[in-house]
Amino acid sequence: MDSAMPQQAQIDLNADMGESFGAYTIGDDEALLDIVTSANLACGFHAGDPATMRRAVQRCLAKGVAIGAHPGLPDLAGFGRRTMQITPDDAYELTIYQLGALQAFVKAEGGSLRHVKPHGALYNMAAARPELAEAIARAVARVSPELTLVGLAGSALPRAAEAVGLRAADEAFADRAYAADGSLAPRHMPGAVYESAAQAAAQALSIARDGAVRAMDSGAAVRVRADTICVHGDSPHAVATARAVRRALEEGGCAIAAL
Amino acid sequence: MDSAMPQQAQIDLNADMGESFGAYTIGDDEALLDIVTSANLACGFHAGDPATMRRAVQRCLAKGVAIGAHPGLPDLAGFGRRTMQITPDDAYELTIYQLGALQAFVKAEGGSLRHVKPHGALYNMAAARPELAEAIARAVARVSPELTLVGLAGSALPRAAEAVGLRAADEAFADRAYAADGSLAPRHMPGAVYESAAQAAAQALSIARDGAVRAMDSGAAVRVRADTICVHGDSPHAVATARAVRRALEEGGCAIAAL
Amino acid sequence: MDSAMPQQAQIDLNADMGESFGAYTIGDDEALLDIVTSANLACGFHAGDPATMRRAVQRCLAKGVAIGAHPGLPDLAGFGRRTMQITPDDAYELTIYQLGALQAFVKAEGGSLRHVKPHGALYNMAAARPELAEAIARAVARVSPELTLVGLAGSALPRAAEAVGLRAADEAFADRAYAADGSLAPRHMPGAVYESAAQAAAQALSIARDGAVRAMDSGAAVRVRADTICVHGDSPHAVATARAVRRALEEGGCAIAAL
Amino acid sequence: MDSAMPQQAQIDLNADMGESFGAYTIGDDEALLDIVTSANLACGFHAGDPATMRRAVQRCLAKGVAIGAHPGLPDLAGFGRRTMQITPDDAYELTIYQLGALQAFVKAEGGSLRHVKPHGALYNMAAARPELAEAIARAVARVSPELTLVGLAGSALPRAAEAVGLRAADEAFADRAYAADGSLAPRHMPGAVYESAAQAAAQALSIARDGAVRAMDSGAAVRVRADTICVHGDSPHAVATARAVRRALEEGGCAIAAL
Repeated sequence: MDSAMPQQAQIDLNADMGESFGAYTIGDDEALLDIVTSANLACGFHAGDPATMRRAVQRCLAKGVAIGAHPGLPDLAGFGRRTMQITPDDAYELTIYQLGALQAFVKAEGGSLRHVKPHGALYNMAAARPELAEAIARAVARVSPELTLVGLAGSALPRAAEAVGLRAADEAFADRAYAADGSLAPRHMPGAVYESAAQAAAQALSIARDGAVRAMDSGAAVRVRADTICVHGDSPHAVATARAVRRALEEGGCAIAAL
Repeated sequence: MDSAMPQQAQIDLNADMGESFGAYTIGDDEALLDIVTSANLACGFHAGDPATMRRAVQRCLAKGVAIGAHPGLPDLAGFGRRTMQITPDDAYELTIYQLGALQAFVKAEGGSLRHVKPHGALYNMAAARPELAEAIARAVARVSPELTLVGLAGSALPRAAEAVGLRAADEAFADRAYAADGSLAPRHMPGAVYESAAQAAAQALSIARDGAVRAMDSGAAVRVRADTICVHGDSPHAVATARAVRRALEEGGCAIAAL
Repeated sequence: MDSAMPQQAQIDLNADMGESFGAYTIGDDEALLDIVTSANLACGFHAGDPATMRRAVQRCLAKGVAIGAHPGLPDLAGFGRRTMQITPDDAYELTIYQLGALQAFVKAEGGSLRHVKPHGALYNMAAARPELAEAIARAVARVSPELTLVGLAGSALPRAAEAVGLRAADEAFADRAYAADGSLAPRHMPGAVYESAAQAAAQALSIARDGAVRAMDSGAAVRVRADTICVHGDSPHAVATARAVRRALEEGGCAIAAL
Repeated sequence: MDSAMPQQAQIDLNADMGESFGAYTIGDDEALLDIVTSANLACGFHAGDPATMRRAVQRCLAKGVAIGAHPGLPDLAGFGRRTMQITPDDAYELTIYQLGALQAFVKAEGGSLRHVKPHGALYNMAAARPELAEAIARAVARVSPELTLVGLAGSALPRAAEAVGLRAADEAFADRAYAADGSLAPRHMPGAVYESAAQAAAQALSIARDGAVRAMDSGAAVRVRADTICVHGDSPHAVATARAVRRALEEGGCAIAAL
């Protein structure tokens, strides 16, 4: 390992999993479990019925992948991706409910829950609205203060986590373009989502090793410090990208380890 | 207190609560909290959204009423009262999910969960089918072996609880007629549900003090030993009956205390 | 009757009904059926299970009250009152689904559906966002072009209805204060919701007879033309207000009749 | 074509479709649409959100495949396959609701609904319990008496359909073994579900041309008269079997046409 290597050369790779529901299967959890070090498991509101949750927990424990709760909005038809006008109380309560449900499965299997990462629209809302971030952080802190709360790097959620005394983890994205101000370029902009596995892999390495990415528009260096990088498994292409990300990090000398 | 009084002269009074949902209110929880020593709180499947659960937990803690989880079948439209053909795995999983969700609310408020009592059709199925009773008992034991599992006195559920090492509590009913074999007379039979508060109160005392009731048909003494007696709060009449039951037990010299 | 009376002296009185769900009862439908001429019946998404829908349809037909579909967002826990970020396609599809479901109950009972009025957050979104209003109007027009579409007077929804060739009905509120620009004062403002039945009754008469109300802030006359006035039945107080509104309209010489 | 060929040499081929939900996809509807003449579309209770229903209707109309409603039990997590203890009123109401919802989509697209076939556990319950069959048949008759009601050949459902004046269609299965009494061999019995496409194809031809199959146990001829044969599309294997069934029927001289 390069002796000049900065400290952030250890990083976590996380993916959303356990998002099947009843007769419906989504995502290639088996493939992802060989790639990531942390799994965010759906908890029944946007995806993940109890049977799926149990099986997902068992698989993670069998593979030694750290388990996190992935609470979402109560919107199965919209997969938790549609913003809803919820109150901080709503956010607090749906976090406690879903966190508790998943934690019980982990306990029943003899494991320990390690982190919480909100899903979809709830993740975005918690990044942008401090009062929702605070409610989610408080919910986690009151149920299990030993958990890490994962949120968009630089957003309201990691700040809220630290404010209530939780360990916060900053998350960055390998396959999403960043604007010069460090925010994610909106999905609908051309080039905002990388199609190329190589591009995603290069950005992951840049985040992990340099704490920086190239801005989509200007190409200028943008500081993006992260504790964990998110990859996806919802298509064969996504799994290949996730593999490329992991390989690039390893070849670049980064240690990949759970939070 | 009568020195000849048998040991079972201490008894718990329990009621189902927290069964509101969103904009919908059901049951007079406030009134019941002054009557019972244990509350079984709905966990979101047959009733009880997260906001209702949180509020119910807070109220129970404020009144010193012991809190139990009241998991039900996933059937909000049917209030968990319609039998569903579920597998033992289904029963195991829905118990873990709901128990965990409620437990998190209790923990967030600084309290401790004390018991689990299945709801409605799940309660009846667990009484009659040993493989479902075993699955529910195992679910509770794997998540929180310190909890008490409440089931119909003499049925498969308390037996399953003991078999997995849980503390079991036998439940009896103040306002339901018993057949000579100790089973509950079916609801649709005339006289199976007592209209009279006095009749319910007398039966409660008989259960608590003598461990016996009079059979509906023959009038013969039937052994019904119970650790807890269930009362209801879904009508003004029901609350009045619950009050009469409590008064009769107190006047009869029974200590009323949580499990 | 005053010979100078303008044409709008005939008006419809409508109320939301059929909003119970399973074991949960909400609203005093029986009382309202003697007051209103049109009922907006929930269709299963924000409230109203199939049994409730059937019973509500039967009651309306028995009382001769005109039946409308009252489609809402898929948010039972939030009673359809929380804004969701839905697309025009979502709005189109959830309108068709719910309208069709209710229409089938009306047909099964030998009646005819008469109108559609979106519920809660969907109503407000359809008032403010032309693309959602257009989607809802198109959904109604493609399923049943003979129906009337009811929306906030002066908002995007009645305009969209007319644009697709539907009959539009402008709705006003008896118990809500209006701002000088003709918009409803936000609920959270002091005085925005009238507590006084007399005040609501006076405003209803003013709307029906004069097509105008007094602005909350300035007291200036504001034009509010309406085909139908909404009353509520979710409390004893609300029912009393609804009765007062009806009486004031009748005594003021307005004919009260369905759209 | 054989001049001695009996009249039943015309037959319908049907498949369940439109069973995706939100982000979840199930079944190969595109492949099946080139094989079958009738599609049974899920209506939102066991599967099929409004967006899926709309798309499924559009596809069927584009391919000229006859559309039927496929109402199921309110059990998305169980895909409508778990028996629930519903009343005839429940069955009546859930049929009207789902039938109406789908019919509205068909109407919006300019088509006509042609039939109704209950799904999963509801199908089996309607085959076995005359009071449920009667409730479903009455629901269809009151909403749209021109529709055909499809049920298990020889069961309570087609009988109930005829009793209320509906056109009934008897359904048989290409890939399921029959017992000597004409009932389907239970799924869990070895050999009850044919793995071989050739075996399914042969049985389909035997049903269509001869109105008979060979009993699983004795090999004796069993009368199985059918108006429609069900095929599946939930695996590549299932689609291949469906294709083999269609080819066998065509090569055997059967006309394949919607009911």
